[in-house]
Amino acid sequence: MNAGDSLQRLRTSKPLVHQITNYVVMNETANATLALGALPVMAHAPEEVEEMVRLAGALVLNIGTLSPPWVEAMLLAGRAANEAGVPVVLDPVGAGATTYRTETAQRILDEVDVAVLRGNAGEVATLVGVDAEVRGVESIGAGGDPGELAREAGARLGLVASVTGPVDHVSDGEATLAIANGHPLLATITGTGCMSSAMTGCFLAVNRDRPLEAAAEALVAFGVAGEDAAAGAKGPGSFHVALYDALAALDPETLDGRANVT
Amino acid sequence: MNAGDSLQRLRTSKPLVHQITNYVVMNETANATLALGALPVMAHAPEEVEEMVRLAGALVLNIGTLSPPWVEAMLLAGRAANEAGVPVVLDPVGAGATTYRTETAQRILDEVDVAVLRGNAGEVATLVGVDAEVRGVESIGAGGDPGELAREAGARLGLVASVTGPVDHVSDGEATLAIANGHPLLATITGTGCMSSAMTGCFLAVNRDRPLEAAAEALVAFGVAGEDAAAGAKGPGSFHVALYDALAALDPETLDGRANVT
Amino acid sequence: MNAGDSLQRLRTSKPLVHQITNYVVMNETANATLALGALPVMAHAPEEVEEMVRLAGALVLNIGTLSPPWVEAMLLAGRAANEAGVPVVLDPVGAGATTYRTETAQRILDEVDVAVLRGNAGEVATLVGVDAEVRGVESIGAGGDPGELAREAGARLGLVASVTGPVDHVSDGEATLAIANGHPLLATITGTGCMSSAMTGCFLAVNRDRPLEAAAEALVAFGVAGEDAAAGAKGPGSFHVALYDALAALDPETLDGRANVT
Repeated sequence: MNAGDSLQRLRTSKPLVHQITNYVVMNETANATLALGALPVMAHAPEEVEEMVRLAGALVLNIGTLSPPWVEAMLLAGRAANEAGVPVVLDPVGAGATTYRTETAQRILDEVDVAVLRGNAGEVATLVGVDAEVRGVESIGAGGDPGELAREAGARLGLVASVTGPVDHVSDGEATLAIANGHPLLATITGTGCMSSAMTGCFLAVNRDRPLEAAAEALVAFGVAGEDAAAGAKGPGSFHVALYDALAALDPETLDGRANVT
Repeated sequence: MNAGDSLQRLRTSKPLVHQITNYVVMNETANATLALGALPVMAHAPEEVEEMVRLAGALVLNIGTLSPPWVEAMLLAGRAANEAGVPVVLDPVGAGATTYRTETAQRILDEVDVAVLRGNAGEVATLVGVDAEVRGVESIGAGGDPGELAREAGARLGLVASVTGPVDHVSDGEATLAIANGHPLLATITGTGCMSSAMTGCFLAVNRDRPLEAAAEALVAFGVAGEDAAAGAKGPGSFHVALYDALAALDPETLDGRANVT
Repeated sequence: MNAGDSLQRLRTSKPLVHQITNYVVMNETANATLALGALPVMAHAPEEVEEMVRLAGALVLNIGTLSPPWVEAMLLAGRAANEAGVPVVLDPVGAGATTYRTETAQRILDEVDVAVLRGNAGEVATLVGVDAEVRGVESIGAGGDPGELAREAGARLGLVASVTGPVDHVSDGEATLAIANGHPLLATITGTGCMSSAMTGCFLAVNRDRPLEAAAEALVAFGVAGEDAAAGAKGPGSFHVALYDALAALDPETLDGRANVT
């Protein structure tokens, strides 16, 4: 793992990260992508998603405000990404809260080769059939150890599972990394989970063959930015603003020294 | 009325507030809901709104960027909320500006049992048949006394009318409360009306049988947060950021002492 | 050109600026419009766009997250605007990136009488048939001189072309103005191009017969606000917040003295 090197390459190559995401956080994930140093593009029309994704370094699918036309666009884009070798991140927002969300996330996992599944414990547990309590789009609790959940999801689903929470766990079913960067204020604004999925897409775009490392590096970078943003924040509003400043100010030279990974 | 006690209960129980709202303010109302202490969820697909609203403590319908599929979802969700005893807030954004908005707001009032109608004077006047000038989604002027307008709307429509403006008026057709908290900077950013509707949903979720009090308490809390945010704000941008900090920092112990209600 | 006078008239008359724009920036362009002193309204349903645009001082069409229903609404609104004498701004976001975006922008130009085309060099070059590199929605490079590109676009398309970049160029095909206001931080957040299109709509609403001047004045005002916002900003997040404060604080008395126009 070398988050600093990846960040440096990302800022040099400025990969396009195609995001089909929810209405609530589009501005936020676009700005987080730009602040980190990549280029976001939001496009969801069936008329253009296949053409757009072929220009991209990564595709991020997020079902936060899903509806049938958007799900069809996600499937079209996901299959085109697979054909073109563009890695795909899936953020199954609210899986477990409604049948439609759970089934849509499962359908995307069935029909698209997903490189990284980034969700909270409740969402990921739902998708591997473990009992979980999901309230709306918030994970209230999921039984068991989140590291074991990530490992099991990685193994069963054949991808890298990135389970975020107070401590994040990333696993490909064999190796599992625990990332303890971050700050409680990240849980006080909407869209930080979605942003971490966008960050995962950014790091994956410059590490196509190393999804485990890319997923962990993204969470290190985002977590360190969260720590920096929390210093001086007076509450969720000022923290939110400082988070973009902190992402843009991330220093590749010192990033790995600040990583809290085991 | 006991806004502090309601806020305390809200922060403890963290009710889910299901919002089918407009594209412009989704991030803002979600963040305001989180900052206050409740959990927002945005979901608008007919495939899931009925299931989602049954998990919720309140439903907020907002027609700010309406279109037929969204209106159908609002009606589905609203009827399911009624069946499940989940209270409904309607924000008739722009009623009076176009026929489609006026008729959609009326249709929702006809087909859904709305607990609180939260709008500006022009919107509410339109819905009770009083002449009003609405420019786009801004109320430019509505004849007569806003307290009397709230009372008349409450009585005619059989709900709690919450008419916001320089001074807010809340009425169930009999009792009318005037809330003079708030700050002129609230009118300089988009979505503060929508946020006050979301806040109303939050307070209603912990006061299902007291819609008049819930509506007034929400405006007290939001107005006090606006007062706190204005201190030190340099303009609409910094005020907007400080508003989330102020909502999160609201103190249940002192809230009622700061209420300016007659 | 008299940007200060236009700003003063805009703040007095508070024109309604109807925006059919993308999901990513709706909140941002609405808040920028309010901060400048005009009234934004977002409405995209075929059921209401014709009625809404007739109430407006200008219409801004932006294809940033286009799909067929939205394109139909843009065409409906654009034609109704033309009939009513309401000036139209087109922001062809991402033209050149996908066939669908390029063809949609061309279709709007064919079917609607556009007063001002506001885009980056890559987008505008695409629409006049000059080779350009567009990555997603970012212009990476367009051959040749941007002033000449603006002149050529203005002449060929029969409108005012407003080509923004490190230096902006506005031309009606004959006169060409170069505006050197602004700051590099404007390129670090999403939606500043879209905001400049919204600002163009605002200035056009009070200068219907002077589209060249309106387009230039809008970029002067937005650029000066960008300069003010950059002072003290620590990064893209704090710059974004300060930009709204700076737009609201623009002083009509001193604005033209700060214009860097040749």
